[in-house]
Amino acid sequence: MALNPAYEAIGKGFVQQYYAMFDDPAQRPTLINLYNAETSFMTFEGMQLQGAVKIMEKLNSLSFQKIDRVITAVDSQPMFDGGILINVLGRLKADDDPPHAYSQIFVLKPLGNSFYCQHDIFRLGIHDTA
Amino acid sequence: MALNPAYEAIGKGFVQQYYAMFDDPAQRPTLINLYNAETSFMTFEGMQLQGAVKIMEKLNSLSFQKIDRVITAVDSQPMFDGGILINVLGRLKADDDPPHAYSQIFVLKPLGNSFYCQHDIFRLGIHDTA
Repeated sequence: MALNPAYEAIGKGFVQQYYAMFDDPAQRPTLINLYNAETSFMTFEGMQLQGAVKIMEKLNSLSFQKIDRVITAVDSQPMFDGGILINVLGRLKADDDPPHAYSQIFVLKPLGNSFYCQHDIFRLGIHDTA
Repeated sequence: MALNPAYEAIGKGFVQQYYAMFDDPAQRPTLINLYNAETSFMTFEGMQLQGAVKIMEKLNSLSFQKIDRVITAVDSQPMFDGGILINVLGRLKADDDPPHAYSQIFVLKPLGNSFYCQHDIFRLGIHDTA
């Protein structure tokens, strides 16, 4: 499969769709449709999870109701199997917590006419100084 | 090709090797050996570069002599083509600049008994607050 020339728009579109679902507690459970039952990997704050069920157990355990999110950078690259590598940097504020910088990486894999999320790495709290 | 069970050690080892070469101005040009002439992609602060020559033009244009680097997180995941996805978060201080947080993602692809860097995304300056 060749490089997808629309990688930039697909990356930005996926990020927008993912966070619209993630940031709304009512929609958050539907994120399960973006992960594969067996072949999706997530590393959440260093904790390694495999498969949609384990990933959703983690995401559903997040108890905040309100998220203010600011995305500061989305960098995408096309991959040689038709997939797309996406790096997101931003800040988020959950309920009454202070705002934190975060980093999230997605690797999307083609599935029919769409994509699923095969790799997801999330880290919260990145500081310019120690 | 199957998932590489040594992904964690390979990820950490690559990061150590890469920065040992990067942080030493005398060794920095040898980074060209880690990239493919045509199939390596780099996004450097949003600037997209393809191929070892273009990537090295960018890296060799960085004029600092001394780098203090602190790595705060390395998260690796195995990929289904035998590759390895690596997320690095850290802080770096170039010459007399103030320290900045940074994020760097590598995707390593198997090549014989070793790996080369097929994807590289670098962003400097991540802030907890606006």
